[in-house]
Amino acid sequence: MTDNTPLNGVSIHDKETPFLLLNRDKLERNVARLREHTDSFGVPLRPHLKTVKSVEAARLILTEGNGPATVSTLKEAEVFAAAGCKNLIYAVGIAPQKLARVVALLKDGTDISVILDSLEQARAVADYSRQASIAIPALIEIDSDGHRSGVAPGDNLLIEIGRILHHDGAELRGIITHAGESYHCKSLEEHQAMAEKERAAAVACADALRHAGLPSPVVSVGSTPTAHFSKDLTGVTEVRAGVFTLFDLVMTGAGVCQTSDIALSVVATVIGHQREKGWIMIDAGWMAMSRDRGTAAQAVDQRYGIVCDMAGNPLGDLLMVDANQEHGIVALRPGSQQTLPYLPYGSRVRILPNHACATVSQHGEFAVIRDGSEHIEALWPIIHGW
Amino acid sequence: MTDNTPLNGVSIHDKETPFLLLNRDKLERNVARLREHTDSFGVPLRPHLKTVKSVEAARLILTEGNGPATVSTLKEAEVFAAAGCKNLIYAVGIAPQKLARVVALLKDGTDISVILDSLEQARAVADYSRQASIAIPALIEIDSDGHRSGVAPGDNLLIEIGRILHHDGAELRGIITHAGESYHCKSLEEHQAMAEKERAAAVACADALRHAGLPSPVVSVGSTPTAHFSKDLTGVTEVRAGVFTLFDLVMTGAGVCQTSDIALSVVATVIGHQREKGWIMIDAGWMAMSRDRGTAAQAVDQRYGIVCDMAGNPLGDLLMVDANQEHGIVALRPGSQQTLPYLPYGSRVRILPNHACATVSQHGEFAVIRDGSEHIEALWPIIHGW
Repeated sequence: MTDNTPLNGVSIHDKETPFLLLNRDKLERNVARLREHTDSFGVPLRPHLKTVKSVEAARLILTEGNGPATVSTLKEAEVFAAAGCKNLIYAVGIAPQKLARVVALLKDGTDISVILDSLEQARAVADYSRQASIAIPALIEIDSDGHRSGVAPGDNLLIEIGRILHHDGAELRGIITHAGESYHCKSLEEHQAMAEKERAAAVACADALRHAGLPSPVVSVGSTPTAHFSKDLTGVTEVRAGVFTLFDLVMTGAGVCQTSDIALSVVATVIGHQREKGWIMIDAGWMAMSRDRGTAAQAVDQRYGIVCDMAGNPLGDLLMVDANQEHGIVALRPGSQQTLPYLPYGSRVRILPNHACATVSQHGEFAVIRDGSEHIEALWPIIHGW
Repeated sequence: MTDNTPLNGVSIHDKETPFLLLNRDKLERNVARLREHTDSFGVPLRPHLKTVKSVEAARLILTEGNGPATVSTLKEAEVFAAAGCKNLIYAVGIAPQKLARVVALLKDGTDISVILDSLEQARAVADYSRQASIAIPALIEIDSDGHRSGVAPGDNLLIEIGRILHHDGAELRGIITHAGESYHCKSLEEHQAMAEKERAAAVACADALRHAGLPSPVVSVGSTPTAHFSKDLTGVTEVRAGVFTLFDLVMTGAGVCQTSDIALSVVATVIGHQREKGWIMIDAGWMAMSRDRGTAAQAVDQRYGIVCDMAGNPLGDLLMVDANQEHGIVALRPGSQQTLPYLPYGSRVRILPNHACATVSQHGEFAVIRDGSEHIEALWPIIHGW
């Protein structure tokens, strides 16, 4: 799927900036950490590949390199399926027009489930299943936390949707939920409570389906925070998470990881100084970082990111405080008593991003390094589009 | 450079969502409007192509289809030069490592100028010019508004930089400035004052160079607001602007255009309803819109964008109020007394973006339509990377 030939001699000090750097060892440790946690409950992980959007990264993340996995676009589904990942959930409420591509994947041997939360969608999926002579696997999304989509727990709509899917041509697979509100939890106790709320709602809805005589072999839960802080997974058949692979400053602020766990950074070059203002200008702007300012809503606002030296160590209170399209402004955190470090013209820094998913999507490839190495061992293409 | 074969039969109602829609007639009217204004002063326009990032769009924007133009990356410079646009300014402070690509463009017949604001950069450009046996054209960036980069007007650094460039091997072209603070102007008077401040600072610095016996054939000013509101361009040799081509909600909020002038929208499909919350879910999230929330700092916060029907007319107070990666939440503007319109499952909407540059960069291509037409007449690829 890609050229991952070692790039002998290309170092992180030579590749033209801005570029996206991935520490493969950190990624592998992050994956091992969550796998250890979910393995302790005997529940498999179904990683969400919307964060890395890379076949090569997926091979390190997935069990035996090929699944199961979650995707956010049919483009991802098609690329990962072609690379051998044949067990997928497309975790965005299905639009009627997208069913043709879902069926094409199914007929090509990929077990891909769609998700839905309405009678209209259930009818569309059942009708299309009959028309295509293939039972499209479908999960009913439930709303465990008021965050986004899903049937409210306790609403009889769940059973009505289940009946249409099960009796009218589709394949009712079970229940799915995503406690996206977990990103806003502020303590270990809040995280644990959110994980239990997510689990309990999903299991109760699966039980409601079963009590109505409907199948629910799958009970799929997950978000990066709830996946890490769950203390009980009784009744759950799989856990989903995405950003745990790379981590970012939002996850640091939410208490899920340390800054040193973040596997992703953007490498930039110093292009100027506005000394009277205490500004250092760099050649990475929002095009390289994304416009995501997720930490603005947290206790510690990291602006456009924490500025590190080329070994990946934060340079005191230095932040990328503002961004234009291709310019970044680096300065001390507001209120800092530190002295602005001297970063000469042409020197390089690494910026830790607010939100890994958003920053990855701004780039065409990852430049991959190992712990302690300055040599880029591979370039991994990033999937774009829908 | 692209496939712009008419796509017979593909309508905006059929192409799979989300996708980026460009009304070519609006783009052409927006360009004509600013050209008429700058022509009235006899000053040429040097459009900034970082907004459209498209060769086909550039052909409609540039004089006689090939220049002059401004770019924000060397990748843009290389693509536009290959397409015949041979007169460019790379308007981001030059990094030493990027000079090799600049010289390659120069040696290939493209007149590309770099910009800089420090002695270190001037020495690097002069040294590289001698080494490569070609005088690299350079503009000295001045800081007319405290927004970002540039030498402060009145600082003798200007002359020192000019001397290095002029005497040590480069080609001193003159002065460049960008009054980016103009985005925050709140009235016609503020816009006009900012335009005059930008002009006066650039002309004064060019005069300072000339008084020191140095050349300044170019006096380049511009931002979309100052370009539209200038009342005097005496001493200015060219005007730059970028977002004026497509416009967006930030420019509407700044009083530079009307909502109906915005040439860009994202087409999305309704995938669900959370009726108790008054939410309509769509399949365009921040991946399709970008994370840019520029209007959050303006008098009227348009959240992730204004929701329109498929003819491009705003649907009352309907906004895309929140976004996840591939989900958008559509609801009434907070405080609205209107009734949520009924948008059935599978129906489509168009979303006007906060910031055209950011939204364009999230997509691989423009789907191009004409006024009043629902048929996509071309797909124009968008340039990515650096």
